[in-house]
Amino acid sequence: MMISARNVFEGKIENVEVGAIMASVKIKIESPELITAIITTESVEKLNLKEGDTVSAIIKSTEIIVAKE
Amino acid sequence: MMISARNVFEGKIENVEVGAIMASVKIKIESPELITAIITTESVEKLNLKEGDTVSAIIKSTEIIVAKE
Amino acid sequence: MMISARNVFEGKIENVEVGAIMASVKIKIESPELITAIITTESVEKLNLKEGDTVSAIIKSTEIIVAKE
Amino acid sequence: MMISARNVFEGKIENVEVGAIMASVKIKIESPELITAIITTESVEKLNLKEGDTVSAIIKSTEIIVAKE
Amino acid sequence: MMISARNVFEGKIENVEVGAIMASVKIKIESPELITAIITTESVEKLNLKEGDTVSAIIKSTEIIVAKE
Amino acid sequence: MMISARNVFEGKIENVEVGAIMASVKIKIESPELITAIITTESVEKLNLKEGDTVSAIIKSTEIIVAKE
Repeated sequence: MMISARNVFEGKIENVEVGAIMASVKIKIESPELITAIITTESVEKLNLKEGDTVSAIIKSTEIIVAKE
Repeated sequence: MMISARNVFEGKIENVEVGAIMASVKIKIESPELITAIITTESVEKLNLKEGDTVSAIIKSTEIIVAKE
Repeated sequence: MMISARNVFEGKIENVEVGAIMASVKIKIESPELITAIITTESVEKLNLKEGDTVSAIIKSTEIIVAKE
Repeated sequence: MMISARNVFEGKIENVEVGAIMASVKIKIESPELITAIITTESVEKLNLKEGDTVSAIIKSTEIIVAKE
Repeated sequence: MMISARNVFEGKIENVEVGAIMASVKIKIESPELITAIITTESVEKLNLKEGDTVSAIIKSTEIIVAKE
Repeated sequence: MMISARNVFEGKIENVEVGAIMASVKIKIESPELITAIITTESVEKLNLKEGDTVSAIIKSTEIIVAKE
């Protein structure tokens, strides 16, 4: 299966914590990865983002889907 | 600044591509990372997720925020 | 009220399960629907998406809003 | 591959429209589906959501991932 | 119509900028508002969030739906 | 730190409610704000959105990140 999501990172589950409705899954990614972020052109300009800049990618944990073979 | 988002990955921008409204930013993460995913308990059970499982974390690129010092 | 979200599907609630903070609501959609997905042009090209292709639309359950008259 | 996302709807692409960075993909779902929505317990109470209620599921098109075999 | 989304802010459009697929809409909210954020309990503990704390609510612009009467 | 998210609203926490995995944080925003929403050009046209229109910005509470100095 090919998937439109640009970010698919393989890893091993380190921890699973389960609540009534929601659960937390911690996954250790095995190798450095290339992250694709789609942001506004306005932000690229305001932050003056360009090749070589050191930045952080911030991802809320509710946005992550987990897949298993 | 401390941030509630559990996933903050540092890296270097490899590429910026700009459209009229939206832009694509590719960031090379420098070291393996621990990803926290919040999913349903129903999914943990249906996929039988447990410590040690090899899984993928899937993240749509529109969900990623970029921060710069 | 008109809403910018392109996907509004009518149905009947089949099940509600309630936790301390979050709840799960299962809704039976009554008729086949047209789903609009906004993805990257890069993904359209990599997956070679075109009219007539059989595909799946994947939606994390935390992304869905419920409305009631 | 099993996926934690509770909503995976199969269909046929009716239309693809491509911009510089983002693209719109319209998918005709072939059969009625069960949608799982995770919302706050506070909302379940304020909207008094219960089995049998007629409701709408609202999904912003940027939240949808497309997969192809 | 009642909606499960806890954050509905009324305002006036100040600016609309249109691209091929995506558009930017800037809305001036007319009065201070109460924002409800659902985050992990882990984050509440790590940031030691409690009543009276000065904090920022961060929302990516792709996550916002616009409604009009 | 500069952040690509176009919406950063300062306020005071009014209430924190904690569950096993997820928590609800209510934040009183102190002054009216300008919200930037990225929606489809198709929606701008269908809703005929233009300067001066009275609209609502709808944000699901799971989409909000909280930051603290």
